[in-house]
Amino acid sequence: MSRTLFTVGPVYVAPDTLESMNKPMITHRSKEYKELHADIVEKIKKTLDTDMEVFLVAGSATAFLEGVIRNGVREKSLGITNGSFGNRSIEIGELNGKTVEKVQVEWGKAMKPADIEGKVTKDIEMVHWVSNESSTGVFSDSVALANAVREQNPDALMMVDAVTSAYAMDIKVKEMDVDAVVFGTQKALALPPGLAILLCSERLLEKAKTVPNRGFYTDLLKIKKQSDNNYALTTPPVSIMYGLDYQLDKALREGMSARYERHQKMADMVRAWADKNMEGIFPEKGYQSNSIGVINKGALDFDAFHSKLKARGYEISNGYGDIKEKTFRIGHLGDTTPEMVADLLSVMDEIMEE
Amino acid sequence: MSRTLFTVGPVYVAPDTLESMNKPMITHRSKEYKELHADIVEKIKKTLDTDMEVFLVAGSATAFLEGVIRNGVREKSLGITNGSFGNRSIEIGELNGKTVEKVQVEWGKAMKPADIEGKVTKDIEMVHWVSNESSTGVFSDSVALANAVREQNPDALMMVDAVTSAYAMDIKVKEMDVDAVVFGTQKALALPPGLAILLCSERLLEKAKTVPNRGFYTDLLKIKKQSDNNYALTTPPVSIMYGLDYQLDKALREGMSARYERHQKMADMVRAWADKNMEGIFPEKGYQSNSIGVINKGALDFDAFHSKLKARGYEISNGYGDIKEKTFRIGHLGDTTPEMVADLLSVMDEIMEE
Repeated sequence: MSRTLFTVGPVYVAPDTLESMNKPMITHRSKEYKELHADIVEKIKKTLDTDMEVFLVAGSATAFLEGVIRNGVREKSLGITNGSFGNRSIEIGELNGKTVEKVQVEWGKAMKPADIEGKVTKDIEMVHWVSNESSTGVFSDSVALANAVREQNPDALMMVDAVTSAYAMDIKVKEMDVDAVVFGTQKALALPPGLAILLCSERLLEKAKTVPNRGFYTDLLKIKKQSDNNYALTTPPVSIMYGLDYQLDKALREGMSARYERHQKMADMVRAWADKNMEGIFPEKGYQSNSIGVINKGALDFDAFHSKLKARGYEISNGYGDIKEKTFRIGHLGDTTPEMVADLLSVMDEIMEE
Repeated sequence: MSRTLFTVGPVYVAPDTLESMNKPMITHRSKEYKELHADIVEKIKKTLDTDMEVFLVAGSATAFLEGVIRNGVREKSLGITNGSFGNRSIEIGELNGKTVEKVQVEWGKAMKPADIEGKVTKDIEMVHWVSNESSTGVFSDSVALANAVREQNPDALMMVDAVTSAYAMDIKVKEMDVDAVVFGTQKALALPPGLAILLCSERLLEKAKTVPNRGFYTDLLKIKKQSDNNYALTTPPVSIMYGLDYQLDKALREGMSARYERHQKMADMVRAWADKNMEGIFPEKGYQSNSIGVINKGALDFDAFHSKLKARGYEISNGYGDIKEKTFRIGHLGDTTPEMVADLLSVMDEIMEE
C-alpha cells in the first residue's frame, strides 16, 4: 500500500529521515533537549539567512498563523488573498474576533503592490498573505508586497504564510523584512507533520505586550521567555525535532542555492509535461510556484487517471477550493529529486497512452 | 547517553513503539488516513469505555485545555486547584479573557466536594480541575467532584485535565459524566509528544454554538464536522498516530484492569521505598497517584543523587512548583513494568548506601 507521494503535503519522507526520528525519548527540561533546541534554531537561522527569533510549537502551521494574529492584532488587519489558504488566514482572524479587511485577487494571479494601493490605512495593524498559494500554485513576490505595505503604513506588522515556499524557493527573509514568517515540518522540510515554526520580529514581540487575550498556547511573550533558554513553552514533539535537526543538516550539506535550483528544475519538468499533455499550468506566467505544479486538466477524468497512477505506486493531489474541478496538482517538495519526477512523468505518459 | 526514563513525561517509549511509527507517510485526506483515524477513535472509546466524541489535534494537551475553555466559556468559569497544573488551567482561562473564580486547595491535599460547597453559582459556565496533579502526586476523586458540581448547578460544564491519569488509573469516564476530558500521547500512552486528545460531550458542542471568538485551530464545531468523516481539521501528526494505534492495541491486549493493577503495583513499590528511605510520600493518604510518586526528600541532596542515578542510566524528575525544594518525583507511566521499577529502586538503594 506504500506509495511515493508527489502530493502537496504531507510529502514523501525518506527512510533515513524516518530512521533519524527513532531515538530514545528525552525530557524537554533536560540538557540534551536544550542542545537539540539550540541546534535547530541555529540551523534554521543559517539556512534561511536570518537573525529573527525562531520559535517552535507542537502543532500544524495553522497554530502559529492563529497565534500571530492573536499576538499582533488588537482590532483590525488586512488580508490579501488569491486562493484557499489566503481565505483561511482571513477566516482565522475573524474567528478570533478581529475585523479583517479583505483584498481579493483573482485565482491564478499573483498578489501585487497595485492590488493593495491605498488599502493599508493607518488603522490596519497587520497585513497578512500567503507566499505560495497551495490551491493555485502561485508564488507572489512578497518582497514587493512588503515594500508596498511599508510605504503606505510603516507601523503595520506583516505576517507571511510560507508553508509551501520556505526551504523550496528563496523567500528572501532579510529583504522581505516582515514580522512573522510561518511554516511547518511536513512540506519542504520533508518530515512528518507535527511542528510549527515561526520567524518572529522584535517589533511583533513589542506589539504583543499591548494586546490582550493573546491566549496561552502560542503567547509569543511566554514562548520568547522559554526560547531564550532553548526551552519550549509546552511539551514539544521531540521525535519530530530529531528529524528536523537531521533534515536541516541535509539542507546545509546540499546548500540552499542548490536546493532552490533543484526545485526549479523539477518545476520546469512538470510545466513542460503540462504544456505537452494538458492545457498547461494554471497560474500566471512569471509567478509560478517551484514547489507545486497546478495543471489545467481540460477533459481529463482525473479520478480514473489517479486510480491508475496510485495502482502503480504514485500519488499526486487533486485540485483544491474554487478550481478543484478544472485542475490537479503535483507537489515536488522536500527531498524529491528530478529523477523521481522523471519517473512519475514517464508513468503518467504511459497511462495517457493506454 | 540513552537513559531509561522514570520521569513524569515525556516517558520511556519502547523500541517496538518507536519502530511502529516508522511507516511511510500518507496524506491526511486519503482513505488510509480515514481508516487510521477511525481505528484510533474506536479503540479510545473501547479502552476508556465511553460514547463521548473523540477529537484529535496536533499539539500538546495544553492546546485542547485552551480550546475547551474558548469553546465552552463566554465569561466566567471556576477553577479548582491543588498544584501547578491546576493553576495553569486557571491562567489559560484568564489569558483568554475569561473571569476565573479560583478555589485553592492546599498542596498535597485532594480536591473534595466540601471545597466547592456554595461556589458553583448560576453564573459559573464551566468548572475545571486536574484529575492527577503532576506537581503533588495527588489523584482527586473526580466522580465525587462532578456530582458536587451537578448538585449545585446542573448547567455548569465540566472539564477534567486527565493528562497523567488517563490510561494509568481508572478515571471512570462514564461515572464522571463531564463534558471534556483532555490528555496527550506522551504520558500514560507511552508515545512521543505531539498529539492532544479530547473526549467531548454533546452538551459542550451545543454550548460552543453560542460562544464567540472560539478561534480556528481548536474550534470544536469545525473539528466535529471533520471528525464525523474521520478527518482532522488541520494537518494531523500521522507518525504519532501510527504509534497511537499501535499502543492502543497494546492496551487492549493487556486489558485495562490489568493495566490499572500494574500501575497500582508500581506505586506501592515506590511508596514502600519512600517510607523506608525517605520521609514518605508527599500527598494525602487515600488520594495518592498511581502514576507519579512525589517523595519527601528530607535532607537528601537531590541533584547529587540524580547525577549518580543518571550516570547509571536512569532518569527521574525533580520537584515542581511550590514544593520543588522539598520533594522529588518518580514517574511510572505507560509501558513501565514493576520489574523496571524494581531495577530502578535497587540502583537507588545502592546509591543511598555509597
